[in-house]
Amino acid sequence: MGKKDNGYVKEITSKDEDFSQWYIDIILKAELADYAPIKGCMVIRPYGFSIWENIQKLLDKRFKETGHSNAYFPLFIPERLLQKEAEHVEGFAPEVAWVTHGGRERLAERIAVRPTSETIICSMYSKWINSWRDLPVLINQWANVVRWEKSTRPFLRTAEFLWQEGHTAHVSEEEAEKETLQMLEVYRDFVETELSIPVIKGRKTEKEKFAGALRTYTIEALMSDGKALQAGTSHNLGQHFAKVFDITYLDKDGELKYVWQTSWGVSTRLIGAIIMTHGDNRGLKLPPRVAPIQVILVPITSHGNKEIILDKIREIHNELKPFYRVELDDRDEYTPGWKYNQWEMKGVPLRLELGPKDLEKNQVVLVRRDTGEKLFVEMASLKESVGELLVKIQKTMFDQAKDFVLKNTHVLSSIEELEIIMEKNKGFVKAMWCGNRNCEDIIKEKTGATIRCIPLEQENLGDKCLCCQGKANKMIYLARAY
Amino acid sequence: MGKKDNGYVKEITSKDEDFSQWYIDIILKAELADYAPIKGCMVIRPYGFSIWENIQKLLDKRFKETGHSNAYFPLFIPERLLQKEAEHVEGFAPEVAWVTHGGRERLAERIAVRPTSETIICSMYSKWINSWRDLPVLINQWANVVRWEKSTRPFLRTAEFLWQEGHTAHVSEEEAEKETLQMLEVYRDFVETELSIPVIKGRKTEKEKFAGALRTYTIEALMSDGKALQAGTSHNLGQHFAKVFDITYLDKDGELKYVWQTSWGVSTRLIGAIIMTHGDNRGLKLPPRVAPIQVILVPITSHGNKEIILDKIREIHNELKPFYRVELDDRDEYTPGWKYNQWEMKGVPLRLELGPKDLEKNQVVLVRRDTGEKLFVEMASLKESVGELLVKIQKTMFDQAKDFVLKNTHVLSSIEELEIIMEKNKGFVKAMWCGNRNCEDIIKEKTGATIRCIPLEQENLGDKCLCCQGKANKMIYLARAY
Repeated sequence: MGKKDNGYVKEITSKDEDFSQWYIDIILKAELADYAPIKGCMVIRPYGFSIWENIQKLLDKRFKETGHSNAYFPLFIPERLLQKEAEHVEGFAPEVAWVTHGGRERLAERIAVRPTSETIICSMYSKWINSWRDLPVLINQWANVVRWEKSTRPFLRTAEFLWQEGHTAHVSEEEAEKETLQMLEVYRDFVETELSIPVIKGRKTEKEKFAGALRTYTIEALMSDGKALQAGTSHNLGQHFAKVFDITYLDKDGELKYVWQTSWGVSTRLIGAIIMTHGDNRGLKLPPRVAPIQVILVPITSHGNKEIILDKIREIHNELKPFYRVELDDRDEYTPGWKYNQWEMKGVPLRLELGPKDLEKNQVVLVRRDTGEKLFVEMASLKESVGELLVKIQKTMFDQAKDFVLKNTHVLSSIEELEIIMEKNKGFVKAMWCGNRNCEDIIKEKTGATIRCIPLEQENLGDKCLCCQGKANKMIYLARAY
Repeated sequence: MGKKDNGYVKEITSKDEDFSQWYIDIILKAELADYAPIKGCMVIRPYGFSIWENIQKLLDKRFKETGHSNAYFPLFIPERLLQKEAEHVEGFAPEVAWVTHGGRERLAERIAVRPTSETIICSMYSKWINSWRDLPVLINQWANVVRWEKSTRPFLRTAEFLWQEGHTAHVSEEEAEKETLQMLEVYRDFVETELSIPVIKGRKTEKEKFAGALRTYTIEALMSDGKALQAGTSHNLGQHFAKVFDITYLDKDGELKYVWQTSWGVSTRLIGAIIMTHGDNRGLKLPPRVAPIQVILVPITSHGNKEIILDKIREIHNELKPFYRVELDDRDEYTPGWKYNQWEMKGVPLRLELGPKDLEKNQVVLVRRDTGEKLFVEMASLKESVGELLVKIQKTMFDQAKDFVLKNTHVLSSIEELEIIMEKNKGFVKAMWCGNRNCEDIIKEKTGATIRCIPLEQENLGDKCLCCQGKANKMIYLARAY
């Protein structure tokens, strides 16, 4: 454990030795987050939060381009509202934090700290929506939500987390379904393009769908320990909530009709996905598009040349700053080697070094975090080279992750094979399923794997169910999951 | 009340008749916010939230330019943490919402929903700060906070509200004071430049300072009903929290020292300030810099020319879109007059009309929301004209508001005069004060006015206290306040 290198101690556990500890070590050591003095909560530190800000910016842009506006609904939901939709309350009640006192007074009715906002939002939509002219309603909210979980892990499952939740209302089932799938595609495109994480798009089974939804769609990613992570979900809520909350509109034909609704969300969990997809034993590896620092500049000075090197590297800093997120590490108290290690731990995609020899040759050294490759680049073409390299790194990281998924996806046809594979968390399993809840339960009980999704792109792998060997026409992805 | 104009009913109360009702009417009618199904909470609707997004963008930029980073701390604070700083807990305890149950279990210790985050943040700073190398810590958080208020009003005082809270730690009192005043100046500049609201910068009295602070500074604005509004505060926390939370660092001289801290915040209350500073009997008036829509395009068509007018106005829309926040209102179901009224209610700074005569003359009509002025502008110079007008409107709105403040600021030297002025909420009063808490209490009791601040720019208005007529060397601003 821990390797001393130029004075910087890499106190992180090896990935193969203990993946969970490796994950926690990176979070603490790269200063992404820290444990808070309250059970199951975390503090997102500036470096981690900056990743979230980049995620927000890139996602919010996509939401607005698809016609959505942001709004803000209350944190608090009266108990009677939460209880209106039966499936919904059953799904969330065990995890709700309850406020019972305001100031020095006991409240007449308990108040839920929102675990999700369907109920409070529906109560408002019922007021706002009256005519077909008011539709569609396309609203998103960036917010904190609370789910009182027993077992937590930073970014993946915490009592409080940050997310966005889209809530839309439409005139028809068809339009709602189109919206549901559109937002699923927005998520896929975002996660694959900006986070370099390949995902499988698919539908959740009835058992795994959102509490109160008609249909739930998901994007599923594969972490580098072979476990799956649900990275985002999009729900067609049908008219379940509309009927309970009485959200009706007067249609053009003069009839009063219930709206069709959707909701969809991703959370700070995506930061966990980045760590577990890309990280290695040297630390975090950040995709350039969301990295808080894309290029770190490290001067290599000795007594005689300090000022001239610093002047030049400051000049480079100023030249690159308008185009990339660059930072200059000119701290005196650390050696270059120490700095290399620290910025590798923090996952900065590119390191730029400038030493006396480089200055002589009018070049800099660029080192890629993803491959370790070292490049000598002429000063004159620096700006372009950096831009091209960042694009290349983004793509290489996706390709590497995709390659990992392909290598760790197995086609199986019996539950015995599945048991063997799952004992070692060996990734995704593609198989056929009869569609029966009973088989789904048996699979989970025997192997620990769940049906991650019924992919939208179906392949025909045979006609027998993995579990009961009965007639099967659904191709599924299975895995143990976070 | 309510005037019918081309079919659009302006159901808003007149400002002179009932200012409070006028304020609420604008909020509901302009769709800024709505009441939520939970006491004292509001929903910020997309149009209102878009103003907040613009405020966030412009403020966040200023925070980052002054070296601050964003982070996120938990919503929940254990009771024992909140109680650590005596003055602080005394100030906030009456307003705290308490969580007592998680899921189906009763919690061992009550948990506060944050009313402000000093205590939870200090508990982390104590862990993160060890050496002089770790300082300064310059962190900001955008978050929701909860204060269980008895009497609430949308944007001005709600049980839950959105804000930002900066929390910094420094090596010396001097540096902390510099930061406190720097952020006060950031607020002044922001509020005056972006919101066109003139403010007075000053220090709060001991009585009015933040619970736990050494010194509190404020920017105070004057609403158009003559009441003051505290628009932002910046606190030098001294070492109060550092000592209680044991936030120490090893200084260069080898000694262990306590840090000096600051905190500072503004909230969604600023949206209330915009409404009450600029609004009139036609509705909201938005400063262009934060208006969700800066220019609304309204086509004036009749049967024969509809397509040609629509084509041209769409062309204009596309031309302006890259530079300004413009929207085209091409709804069929409303008349132009109805639309004018609606967009005036919503406070859009500029309206662009295009009718058949304008098309002939190759011009458009621009109507200013601030002055009602109508301008005929040639198509060729449209982009530039719009830009210049938006700048002009921003400035005119500030000048108008500044003029109002000057006209409603009185220099007084006796409490009897103050009583007369305050009976009608007649604005700001400048006066001299002896500095005695007793006089401060008498003033409030007799007149309802509070000392808004001791302005940083002092004027000498005499040497006798407004209240006791004793020796006075502090010039103060007084007003009734929200």
